[in-house]
Amino acid sequence: MANKFISLRNLKFLLYEIFDVESLTKYPFFADHSREVFDLVLDTAMKMGRGLLFPAFAEMDRKPPVFENGIVKVHPVVRELMKQVGEGGWIGAHTRYEQGGQQMPNSILAAFRAIFAAANYSAAVYPFLTTGAAHLISSFGSKELVETYVGKMFAGQWQGTMALTEPQAGSSLTDLTTTAHPTDQGYYKMKGQKIFISCADYDGIENVVNLLLARIQGAPLGIKGISLFVAPKLRPENGKLAPNDIICTTIYHKLGYKGAPLTQLSLGENGDCRGWLVGEPHKGIRYMFQMMNEARIDVGMSAAAIASAAYYAALDYARERPQGRKITEKDPGVPQIPIINHADIKRMLLFQRAIVEGALALNLQCAKYVDLAQVLEGEDKERAELLLDLLTPIAKTYPSEMGILSVSQGLQCLGGYGYCDEFPLEQYYRDVRIHAIHEGTTGIQGMDLLGRKVVMKQGKAFLLFLDEVGKAIAAAKADAQLAPQAEALAEALEKLKQVTAHLTGFALKNQIELFLSDATVFLEFFGIITIAWQWLLQAQTATKALAKNPPEAEANFYQGKLQTFRYFFTYELTKIEGLARTLLQTDGLCLEMKTEWFED
Amino acid sequence: MANKFISLRNLKFLLYEIFDVESLTKYPFFADHSREVFDLVLDTAMKMGRGLLFPAFAEMDRKPPVFENGIVKVHPVVRELMKQVGEGGWIGAHTRYEQGGQQMPNSILAAFRAIFAAANYSAAVYPFLTTGAAHLISSFGSKELVETYVGKMFAGQWQGTMALTEPQAGSSLTDLTTTAHPTDQGYYKMKGQKIFISCADYDGIENVVNLLLARIQGAPLGIKGISLFVAPKLRPENGKLAPNDIICTTIYHKLGYKGAPLTQLSLGENGDCRGWLVGEPHKGIRYMFQMMNEARIDVGMSAAAIASAAYYAALDYARERPQGRKITEKDPGVPQIPIINHADIKRMLLFQRAIVEGALALNLQCAKYVDLAQVLEGEDKERAELLLDLLTPIAKTYPSEMGILSVSQGLQCLGGYGYCDEFPLEQYYRDVRIHAIHEGTTGIQGMDLLGRKVVMKQGKAFLLFLDEVGKAIAAAKADAQLAPQAEALAEALEKLKQVTAHLTGFALKNQIELFLSDATVFLEFFGIITIAWQWLLQAQTATKALAKNPPEAEANFYQGKLQTFRYFFTYELTKIEGLARTLLQTDGLCLEMKTEWFED
Repeated sequence: MANKFISLRNLKFLLYEIFDVESLTKYPFFADHSREVFDLVLDTAMKMGRGLLFPAFAEMDRKPPVFENGIVKVHPVVRELMKQVGEGGWIGAHTRYEQGGQQMPNSILAAFRAIFAAANYSAAVYPFLTTGAAHLISSFGSKELVETYVGKMFAGQWQGTMALTEPQAGSSLTDLTTTAHPTDQGYYKMKGQKIFISCADYDGIENVVNLLLARIQGAPLGIKGISLFVAPKLRPENGKLAPNDIICTTIYHKLGYKGAPLTQLSLGENGDCRGWLVGEPHKGIRYMFQMMNEARIDVGMSAAAIASAAYYAALDYARERPQGRKITEKDPGVPQIPIINHADIKRMLLFQRAIVEGALALNLQCAKYVDLAQVLEGEDKERAELLLDLLTPIAKTYPSEMGILSVSQGLQCLGGYGYCDEFPLEQYYRDVRIHAIHEGTTGIQGMDLLGRKVVMKQGKAFLLFLDEVGKAIAAAKADAQLAPQAEALAEALEKLKQVTAHLTGFALKNQIELFLSDATVFLEFFGIITIAWQWLLQAQTATKALAKNPPEAEANFYQGKLQTFRYFFTYELTKIEGLARTLLQTDGLCLEMKTEWFED
Repeated sequence: MANKFISLRNLKFLLYEIFDVESLTKYPFFADHSREVFDLVLDTAMKMGRGLLFPAFAEMDRKPPVFENGIVKVHPVVRELMKQVGEGGWIGAHTRYEQGGQQMPNSILAAFRAIFAAANYSAAVYPFLTTGAAHLISSFGSKELVETYVGKMFAGQWQGTMALTEPQAGSSLTDLTTTAHPTDQGYYKMKGQKIFISCADYDGIENVVNLLLARIQGAPLGIKGISLFVAPKLRPENGKLAPNDIICTTIYHKLGYKGAPLTQLSLGENGDCRGWLVGEPHKGIRYMFQMMNEARIDVGMSAAAIASAAYYAALDYARERPQGRKITEKDPGVPQIPIINHADIKRMLLFQRAIVEGALALNLQCAKYVDLAQVLEGEDKERAELLLDLLTPIAKTYPSEMGILSVSQGLQCLGGYGYCDEFPLEQYYRDVRIHAIHEGTTGIQGMDLLGRKVVMKQGKAFLLFLDEVGKAIAAAKADAQLAPQAEALAEALEKLKQVTAHLTGFALKNQIELFLSDATVFLEFFGIITIAWQWLLQAQTATKALAKNPPEAEANFYQGKLQTFRYFFTYELTKIEGLARTLLQTDGLCLEMKTEWFED
């Protein structure tokens, strides 16, 4: 198996040539950094990916965590990884100097995380979660909470988690019932059950810090009665760590993503589980959504990263495997040729590259908006924030859903071998399937996009998106090579406006169920147009670079970019035709389906 | 877990109300049968499915075959199954009385097999393969071969296999190298390696009969030098069974479909492997394609069947699982409702039902053509045969590719639980992925459809298809309820003609590579239109049945049919818009992609 899981060349293309991340260093917040520092970060990630994460990729799947005698045993690479990322300062690298961070641009760290996820997603999850949880405490927690927890988490000594889901609630956070009884000791007594919590207990880590949603005794019903707590596995007491009555009761056996234990937690069975309120009471959902939104973009990035690893594994096989001949070659005496020469294999590889590099671009675009929101002010800041808000459900879902198909095509390139565990494709196929589910299913993302993001502030974010894509179209039209695709995207944008007006029309008539009944289809439709925009941006840079007659290897890279861009417009953007037709026909067909009609 | 994996009501709807299988009994060949007999067959299959196959479904996955000391150990249910299907006469039920069969219509047996595959695909494969292999011997083998092998295979005492694939050849059968040296004893000495051979060795079966492709010493290179042999694991000698020097060297570890061992065989390592020629030399590919074509339709049917089982598991969950409230219900004090009430869950269920019942219909349509070809003469017979030939790659691929997506949506309905092995969805998701690969990958089916079937006999089969669909459209137009969809299908048919003319235009200009470069996309496009036709047929019957005011349960069934039909036209048929646009733009984009452009 080749040792390639992601293209550093492509990440640099996106970061430097498309999103001009270097320009961030002109802002005081990022002024200590430089291209050299960024390159060093990326090289470090590649080194750790190749040396530590990728070698454990298959083994973490074959020997998943075991739950025995109340202890979750995970692969030893996890300890080493947490140690190295802690010592390297990677967990808190994005935070301010005064919080122990390095004020590193999110764009660079997003690429760092993509490299990790491509090398070994299950392993990468441990530090990712710790970053998100620590960020939540440092953003909203008291000084005491920050001092107690954040340093240990940044150092990789304590694991962070996000503990939302409960058996009776699932995606319906409104129905959480874990309770927090106030005491006069500054903490709350917690009681309840959490399920599907990643990495909330395992051997070899000193402590686990759960960022946990619960309801303070007497709180109002629903979302507005939910608060955020820190509830560690072991609580610091008198300089020691004491058990905090949080028990892992089981771990789940999963399709993939097996290296990270998915735990079920029981809190306060012995009446001695303590939680510390983060921020103000009843604002837990708002706080948690900071972590959730970061996690959603991370999920999208991870899906793209897994698809990237699958793509390179398929590409490697396609180059090496001789089978068949040119279709016009009728002489069976002529040697067989590598399958990469067959049109259908090229199509499958182009499809994968179109998805992978389109999705990575969108996720880095989002990361850039995070950075811009950090350094800009006023309307510019708002623009970055609104675009980020709008694009988050797409950045989560497009890679997750299309990643499934992309990995499936990678598997298909290997034929029967793709179905066997001698090759990594079958594992990528299992691993990538989680992303359309966790951190909000695709259905939930669709409702978020159409029900909230498109209509928020009288559609301001949506109008900003149209403006942003419009600018890319205008620039591309000046390039004769790109004019047909620029025109196609302009048409797509018109369709997007038309469909959106049609659907929001239901909202204006207060037909809310109808308005949202095809939200998932709308998300798919919007997602394709968004990725087309990202490909148009890439193509503009590629044609300019080619015009300068670069050396052969560079020319190949840019030619490949251009051909993949053309592929996307010819084979993927065309899908919006049917989706628009479906969405413009929305008349409540699914809503009208009666439960009893499913009987037979 | 509910005990439902397929709808007998729906199978009967398709068999009796759509395809009028009863009418076959008016032909002498099937005259001994009746609706009562057919119902009994279906009931038997349901009984065996529920009682024998389904209970072993999960366990065969959790405890897959083990290869130890040269022996492949499989789940004990396999022995019981082979015994029961053998004793029941099911393996050879389709053959003539004088061959030991029952002259049972293929349509009924196809439904029988669908029930088995839905209950437990891995287990169902053992008898399926035996049927195909025995049929091949009885069709083309000498009287001696038939007498020696077929009876034992029909009795379920000996397993049949199809042994094509070799390590260096994969899908390229041209490059098979297994050799057969003639002797003067009536047999050939065989030498070579076969890979990915299902069920070619396991404990608890008396013998295995491999139907095997090989090259007679001195045969011409290529396809025209390949012959078909019977090469049993144990050869009958003097009333006993002697080892035939065929060794299972390993079994593969697979993503799914784990209950059936995929073996690697070594033939003639000790120079004592004997094979008996089936039919004439060098005609092996033509003979094998009888079994292959049957197997392809079986694969499609099996994919639809697995998707059916996944659909019922998802439906069951969606009915039982309370989560969330109506979107317009803002009071968190109101109890949660079963998720089947949410529009997006309904959409996912409708999608699955549209795929499952559309695909089952197409496969039973093909089964009916097999039966018609059996009993008709002259042009009518040719019509049935040509339509069967044309539709085979679609009947194989549409269910296989869409089955993957259908099961994935089933898994999605369960959220996090869908990803865990407490529920069967994750297994269906793994199991169903094989079907786009085995018995000819999707890429190969695309080339078969466009490169052979559409153009054969000056497009005669294609024109027959247009005629057949045209008749359904004309009939549906008379029903005002169905007129919009009839019109949509008529438009689709025009698009199909236009696209086909565009692509075959390249063939006429001898641009063969270009002609076939998007064959897979063409197959997808053609497949959707084909299933729309099958749904239009179903809708016509449903509206007529509803007009008679049937009892409530029946009315629900037909209403569900109609709503699913509408779903298919609104959400699935619309996909052809983009596909047509892609195909009409075919200009060699994939072909032009240079290998080195994949570098970076």
